[in-house]
Amino acid sequence: MEEGKRQVVAFLGPVASYTHQAALSKFKDDAKCILQPSTTIKDVFAAVQSGSAGYGVVPFENSSNGSVSFTLDLLADAEAQYQEILVCGETYVPVSHCLLGRASKSQTPPPQQQEQGHQHHSSELPLLRRLIDAAEDRDSASLVSKGEYAHSSGRVTPTQTHPQPGKPRSQPQYDLSHIKSLHSHPQAWGQCKLFLDYYLKGIPQEDASSTSKAAELVARDETGTSAAISSRIAADIHGLDILAEGIQDRESNATRFFVLRRKADLVAEAPQAHDVGGEDEEEVKRRFKSLLLFTISHDEPGALADSLAVFKKHKLNLTSIPTRPSGKVPWQYIFFVEFKGRKRPEGQGGAVNDALAELSRVAQSWKWLGSWESALDT
Amino acid sequence: MEEGKRQVVAFLGPVASYTHQAALSKFKDDAKCILQPSTTIKDVFAAVQSGSAGYGVVPFENSSNGSVSFTLDLLADAEAQYQEILVCGETYVPVSHCLLGRASKSQTPPPQQQEQGHQHHSSELPLLRRLIDAAEDRDSASLVSKGEYAHSSGRVTPTQTHPQPGKPRSQPQYDLSHIKSLHSHPQAWGQCKLFLDYYLKGIPQEDASSTSKAAELVARDETGTSAAISSRIAADIHGLDILAEGIQDRESNATRFFVLRRKADLVAEAPQAHDVGGEDEEEVKRRFKSLLLFTISHDEPGALADSLAVFKKHKLNLTSIPTRPSGKVPWQYIFFVEFKGRKRPEGQGGAVNDALAELSRVAQSWKWLGSWESALDT
Repeated sequence: MEEGKRQVVAFLGPVASYTHQAALSKFKDDAKCILQPSTTIKDVFAAVQSGSAGYGVVPFENSSNGSVSFTLDLLADAEAQYQEILVCGETYVPVSHCLLGRASKSQTPPPQQQEQGHQHHSSELPLLRRLIDAAEDRDSASLVSKGEYAHSSGRVTPTQTHPQPGKPRSQPQYDLSHIKSLHSHPQAWGQCKLFLDYYLKGIPQEDASSTSKAAELVARDETGTSAAISSRIAADIHGLDILAEGIQDRESNATRFFVLRRKADLVAEAPQAHDVGGEDEEEVKRRFKSLLLFTISHDEPGALADSLAVFKKHKLNLTSIPTRPSGKVPWQYIFFVEFKGRKRPEGQGGAVNDALAELSRVAQSWKWLGSWESALDT
Repeated sequence: MEEGKRQVVAFLGPVASYTHQAALSKFKDDAKCILQPSTTIKDVFAAVQSGSAGYGVVPFENSSNGSVSFTLDLLADAEAQYQEILVCGETYVPVSHCLLGRASKSQTPPPQQQEQGHQHHSSELPLLRRLIDAAEDRDSASLVSKGEYAHSSGRVTPTQTHPQPGKPRSQPQYDLSHIKSLHSHPQAWGQCKLFLDYYLKGIPQEDASSTSKAAELVARDETGTSAAISSRIAADIHGLDILAEGIQDRESNATRFFVLRRKADLVAEAPQAHDVGGEDEEEVKRRFKSLLLFTISHDEPGALADSLAVFKKHKLNLTSIPTRPSGKVPWQYIFFVEFKGRKRPEGQGGAVNDALAELSRVAQSWKWLGSWESALDT
């Protein structure tokens, strides 16, 4: 640990992305950290592996869309390029998608928009301050577990608490008949299906590399007939009108991010993190999560069931089990297992260590990917 | 079953997509079928559910990129819109990505290109004939299992049989220094990482809605400085040069497609398909695959392990287990299970029926998604 020196936190950019929000929610109070956007998730891994960044922040899964396969593949690390990397933390960022564009000329903002005192082209606040406010505004974990964050901004958001199946939970704040094209990250189409089917059926959807980039494209379109699915922050930055807010299908849509670190830095900084010997096992399971991956022999029917039975035997409750192609043999898979609990130092016993010893006997191989404190209080 | 009437086969378009190739490989010999492109996977499901199409063809997974989440979500059918749909078949299409663009003026085609007698802007053959030839050229299943299809065209493809890790398996047939932008479907970036990192590092990647659409965009770019990752067929259709061929990371990259059908049509057409009582159980397991999904109670640790143990107990070998968000409660999942075997009519016993009875006791819920004859001879 380099005392006194500022640490780089590499995050998946661009600036104002949801990953930027995630990085701010973890590191904004740490004056020793400098946040630095990376172009790709792979670049974040490379920066942490090489040591040019002390931490990395990458998206891991979205509550509606599922796992981020690029992150899983980099954790699986088929080419052994990122062997120093472990997951050391998580954070949840609620995703509130907005439809951004230009209100057609004849329209005035609806009353609640004026009440909010929302300023377009706002430049009074430095960008970072506004990003921090936004991150605080929707501070995530406890709100996610209570399912309340769609209302956490204090603004009047046109949502239904109990939406009918198949009906969008939000309605436009402006007429949308002038919209001729839509731009967003491919994941956003899947998260806003109901709204798009209901209000913008048949309008062509053009993929952009990020929701933030989509807003930038729309801002450059002088005809005013394109719209982006993006964040409220992007509306501020690019001077766009919020045509509709909270248009995602599920009120509780959130993305989970992982914080990455080098093994050596983790050990150097917090040797006690590897010594939980005195803690109560149930308390450890409540507070910590762990991630590993394993592969199985495809010649042994039941190897998958046997591997998962190991976790059951040691009462390690699985919280998710995403799979990815093995990257070696077609139609064979890598199984990721996330569970409640924490690994102890070698020889100290405990449920996780005992399970790992048994897993070695039934799985073909396994790889440890880290333990961290849960951000959800469940 | 409507005797004598032509059946519509709805497939995920556009024309010349890989799904079109999949549909041709299944239905080209059936004069009673009319192939019809749909805009989205959802449209294919809707056409089959409503009966406006007799069959549907949709992508299910890629050997490098994993599951197609839209298809999984439509099979999960959270809104109960597609309750009539079952999977009744599968087909594998090898994916051979090409880099398409314009060779810079000073270059002549390399020798092997001339030997192939490959005609750009070819219009001698009707499109459908060329598509059928292409589909036959790479007729899939047996070739996939032998890992030979990269050579199946009879053309000299610049591949390495045993590529070194981290090195692309193919090299450009033309100089690429004039290429300033790249266009493709987001999945293709993941499948061609090594080639892109090695030959086109730093060139901006623009997402398109399909590989076929990407080729169309590049064909319209008169500067000649953009390139698309797309198929050989798309080069023909859009009059582009093949700058490099077989640029996917893995020689054995293939996509698996499902054929969808209405339950009622399946029963009406082939009542014997539901009567396999006389067949040897091992023979059935060798020839058939089945798909179902289940959900578990998250209050019961080990429910996932218990559910999978049911399949092991009945010696049903799991071939894949993709997961998706439940669509109801954040961070809870739907588990899809694919295995070797076939469901028999109620009351006839057999491994699958016995397993389903037990699954009812340990899983929260399950849904049957179909049995079909395996296209891979393993």
